[in-house]
Amino acid sequence: MLIVQKYGGTSVGDLDRIQNVANKVAKTKKEGHRLVVVVSAMSGETDKLLGYAKHFSQIPDPRELDMILSSGERVTSALLALALQAMGFKSISLSGRGAGMITDKSHSKARIDHIDTARIDSLLEDDTIVVVAGFQGITPDGEVTTLGRGGSDLSAVALAGALKADLCEIYTDVEGVYTTDPRIEPKAKKIDKISYDEMLELASMGAKVLLNRSVELAKKLNVNLITKSSFSDNPGTLITKEEEIMENPVVSGIALDKNQARVSITNVQDRPGIAAEIFGALAEANINVDMIVQTIGYDSLTDMDFTIPKTELESAKLVLKRFEGSVGGIEFDDNIAKVSIVGVGMKSHTGVASKAFKALAQDNINIMMISTSEIKISMIINLKYAELSVRTLHATYELDK
Amino acid sequence: MLIVQKYGGTSVGDLDRIQNVANKVAKTKKEGHRLVVVVSAMSGETDKLLGYAKHFSQIPDPRELDMILSSGERVTSALLALALQAMGFKSISLSGRGAGMITDKSHSKARIDHIDTARIDSLLEDDTIVVVAGFQGITPDGEVTTLGRGGSDLSAVALAGALKADLCEIYTDVEGVYTTDPRIEPKAKKIDKISYDEMLELASMGAKVLLNRSVELAKKLNVNLITKSSFSDNPGTLITKEEEIMENPVVSGIALDKNQARVSITNVQDRPGIAAEIFGALAEANINVDMIVQTIGYDSLTDMDFTIPKTELESAKLVLKRFEGSVGGIEFDDNIAKVSIVGVGMKSHTGVASKAFKALAQDNINIMMISTSEIKISMIINLKYAELSVRTLHATYELDK
Repeated sequence: MLIVQKYGGTSVGDLDRIQNVANKVAKTKKEGHRLVVVVSAMSGETDKLLGYAKHFSQIPDPRELDMILSSGERVTSALLALALQAMGFKSISLSGRGAGMITDKSHSKARIDHIDTARIDSLLEDDTIVVVAGFQGITPDGEVTTLGRGGSDLSAVALAGALKADLCEIYTDVEGVYTTDPRIEPKAKKIDKISYDEMLELASMGAKVLLNRSVELAKKLNVNLITKSSFSDNPGTLITKEEEIMENPVVSGIALDKNQARVSITNVQDRPGIAAEIFGALAEANINVDMIVQTIGYDSLTDMDFTIPKTELESAKLVLKRFEGSVGGIEFDDNIAKVSIVGVGMKSHTGVASKAFKALAQDNINIMMISTSEIKISMIINLKYAELSVRTLHATYELDK
Repeated sequence: MLIVQKYGGTSVGDLDRIQNVANKVAKTKKEGHRLVVVVSAMSGETDKLLGYAKHFSQIPDPRELDMILSSGERVTSALLALALQAMGFKSISLSGRGAGMITDKSHSKARIDHIDTARIDSLLEDDTIVVVAGFQGITPDGEVTTLGRGGSDLSAVALAGALKADLCEIYTDVEGVYTTDPRIEPKAKKIDKISYDEMLELASMGAKVLLNRSVELAKKLNVNLITKSSFSDNPGTLITKEEEIMENPVVSGIALDKNQARVSITNVQDRPGIAAEIFGALAEANINVDMIVQTIGYDSLTDMDFTIPKTELESAKLVLKRFEGSVGGIEFDDNIAKVSIVGVGMKSHTGVASKAFKALAQDNINIMMISTSEIKISMIINLKYAELSVRTLHATYELDK
């Protein structure tokens, strides 16, 4: 098999941990696989360098910042190559440039345009373990770029796609994807297999394992992603095409998001364009609107509820001031939580939602807003019931079994 | 003027010192000059990274080591560019690659082949302060190399040569070149101007300001070198062509080298080839022979004295064992010091040497070996008189005046 492995900052956080990674890589190599290993900077390194840059400028020139930040991964990649060489393996480190990672020119948040894999191909041919500095690439002009948050994951997924790797293993400090946050529900179980779409819904709502950018790219490039721990030998979670998963459970996981605030606008004139005006104004202010629920009222008046990130609450208040005259009232509530039930099995099962409503009702938890998609049911509830609702729903769908 | 400035590791040792460097650069820029600034890694950084590499391998793969070590200068160059931008200047950082520094393929001790200055030329044309990461280059294949010890000085001198700069200023933590080591003779005076050849003789014997490699390159490329302190505004020492120095003093400085050991071989058969055999055997063992004195003896027998680095004494003993039968005796003495008088003015003055011999004799210092060149007189003496002889000679030639 051709395997791309990616080790994050915690996994390469010090020299002993880099040795630990070398041991894991060596084990995979000895199983007869061809290997490309993508590494992050040692944990803390990127923040340290960012701190240096901010000492001179609060908004540092992104070109110079990329030059600075890209150095951390270069060091870890070469150190890992040295560790593997010391164990008797052929190994070489490649910077983003060396790996042929060509991006656009958006410094500090560059997008991968394509990967010129010629060099990696021939190194793999030569039985060499290729260690690639993650998080970085170059523009067509040869300027160093970085890929932004979660950039090393993205490097790994993009490489796996370009090389048509059989697997892309993302090593972190957690065992994989869980049915819910184990800190809230200790009975949470690790999920063995999950579809891209379910992962996207879980990740966007707080499962900190993988950023959606990487999952989306894996879906687009058809990359079999495995997320697992670099500190154990457990198998982790496979994220793959829905069709690859034989028996989809009705519900795969429960996600919780406590970073939303609710905006309720009452007695909005039910005329075309009013919603567009309000949401247009919010979009202009870069305020990301999540759930939207509109209820058709009497006398051509409707009520509109929607959620925004809690951090945007003050800006939203400013933006919406201009609509105060033309609506009944505007209320803001940051004392809420969003709890979501995710599962591709919902598509072919009925009664999933009503089961949730009933369970929450039994706990006297009032549901303020509901929105559903093919594979997700999201509910806005009072913040104080956030953890309780997660545990209740986790039990309701027997995710601890 | 076009000026190349180079700031060493101590000068950019922390963020405040980088700001201090930015202030110095800004001052030069405001005087109307075009500027290329070469920087080292923050002091301690290179050693830290080298330590990391050695954790995995006592002799790390030089290609990987270069990838690791080159990161330090990249960071400081970008930080300095940010600091200059924050002060309102146009500034950009370039890695060795960006600066067009093309080297041979000898990783970790690469030699500069040529510099493609097109990019720097157009940036200077655009009134931009160009900050270059020192110590590094790339091979024609695009692999990152480093230039070895003193590499950043070498980058600066090579850039100054390629750009036909008017001046190359090397900033360190000392004020310039002194008539002798001020820790030995507090009356030592900073030298205002000195010729390349004198500097080469002084540097090779312990003046730690500049490595000979850089001075030799400056001589070859006709670069006017100034070495000065980044922590003061004093003018430093200009190292230039002999012809540029109007009145050469007879003696410019006194150098001391306490790292030599003496080997005396007595009653060597005075037949052709015996010296070649002995020195050939030493060269084969990579033992660097410095001074050699041969005295013609009676009966076709000669005595040979020479010096080697103290650190090579044990290997030399091993190498010379095989000659024990064919010579009278072999003695080793590591209790010596080499004191040297350097000055281009010697060429046109007589009696310089005898003055030294007389002065040392008055202090009862016995001279074991003497060797002279056009601009240097070196003497081997007992180690315990090392500092005394320096002070005596410093006074003899009135270098404190």
